[in-house]
Amino acid sequence: MARKASIVIFSDELDRACSAFTIANGAAASGMEVILFFSCWGVNLVRKDGRAFQGNTPMNRLMNFLTAGGAARLRLSRFNLLGMGSWMMRRRMKAVNIQSIPEMMADARDLGVRFLVCDNPIAIMGLRKQDLIDEVEDIVGVATYIKESAGANLTLFI
Amino acid sequence: MARKASIVIFSDELDRACSAFTIANGAAASGMEVILFFSCWGVNLVRKDGRAFQGNTPMNRLMNFLTAGGAARLRLSRFNLLGMGSWMMRRRMKAVNIQSIPEMMADARDLGVRFLVCDNPIAIMGLRKQDLIDEVEDIVGVATYIKESAGANLTLFI
Amino acid sequence: MARKASIVIFSDELDRACSAFTIANGAAASGMEVILFFSCWGVNLVRKDGRAFQGNTPMNRLMNFLTAGGAARLRLSRFNLLGMGSWMMRRRMKAVNIQSIPEMMADARDLGVRFLVCDNPIAIMGLRKQDLIDEVEDIVGVATYIKESAGANLTLFI
Repeated sequence: MARKASIVIFSDELDRACSAFTIANGAAASGMEVILFFSCWGVNLVRKDGRAFQGNTPMNRLMNFLTAGGAARLRLSRFNLLGMGSWMMRRRMKAVNIQSIPEMMADARDLGVRFLVCDNPIAIMGLRKQDLIDEVEDIVGVATYIKESAGANLTLFI
Repeated sequence: MARKASIVIFSDELDRACSAFTIANGAAASGMEVILFFSCWGVNLVRKDGRAFQGNTPMNRLMNFLTAGGAARLRLSRFNLLGMGSWMMRRRMKAVNIQSIPEMMADARDLGVRFLVCDNPIAIMGLRKQDLIDEVEDIVGVATYIKESAGANLTLFI
Repeated sequence: MARKASIVIFSDELDRACSAFTIANGAAASGMEVILFFSCWGVNLVRKDGRAFQGNTPMNRLMNFLTAGGAARLRLSRFNLLGMGSWMMRRRMKAVNIQSIPEMMADARDLGVRFLVCDNPIAIMGLRKQDLIDEVEDIVGVATYIKESAGANLTLFI
């Protein structure tokens, strides 16, 4: 019996991304079809560069400064402590042999996890398909999310 | 085949509310029965006025000052920057033709999305049914949530 | 027909923990099998003592100071106001006869709700089984989470 998991990745925080990819890869490894929908801040996880907001207005530059990073250096949702908390967390994860987010994302790709990105945040951030990493299959509207999720056995919003 | 979505709206933040109503309206537009359960901070989205905490104690006045708003002027979960971030986000949403939260809520009503509100936050905030917007069908306990959600195909906590 | 709920408790914030246990106990009271998966910060809810990070490095001591508490004195996700907000919330909950988190957890145990803890945060925090409260059935990997959740009717990430 084919089983399916649909996970909205709303957040780009280290701790939440870690949970999302652990669940996604665990589901794929056990034979489930897994679709990730990157929405809102989660889109930062699948951008090629560190800039979320395109254009050169002062506000966009400020937002880009605040959100700079990419999947390799995410912040924690709590106790980020200007980066010290997330630095310690990444260090601890490595010490106890837990994969980093980029490693988990590479595994997800190898396990056949599908990466879809929601169109609204893409429009808000002024991004194009070529600004996203190659793992991204498509930019989709909510109708696609609903179609894929209504038949899923496991639906999460992280 | 009738399909059903059950969504707990726990948060009243602009970005999360935006995701919640986009999914709710998308599901309803594709023929699903959709029930929203407003809980905790999410209750702020369905209050008539901007005051969450009834009564006139100093703490209630402080909490009301901090939570003042209503569905038209929500804060962001990140980079709110004393309102600048959410102001920019609303401006960008309008520029790229994404609906505002009040517009999404009006569409939700027209699409037949059901609005239920959890009783515990109502008790905590000292609100009554008449303090909530007309779209709210009822104030319900957790038993109703479980009854409606156990048979749903899509269950989310946002 | 046996029905099942699978809930990831990712957060240790008072408001989210309150929602999680309200839903868990409501589901169990209506005859559903309920499994809670404590992950990341949620592990703080099932620790015996108030210390999350074992070891005596300055960073661990700092993190322990910041996360000290236990289920009886959680912070709010918003308006914590150095504890004033969560103090007021606990006071209001008691005034309107809503159970405290420790009371909800005792009820969960009596209703047969199963407590499982994810292995990754346990490794990161350097905890052992004996550091967790007796209600915890086991420390499990993601494969167990997937196995238990793929057949669940209600799946939430809180």
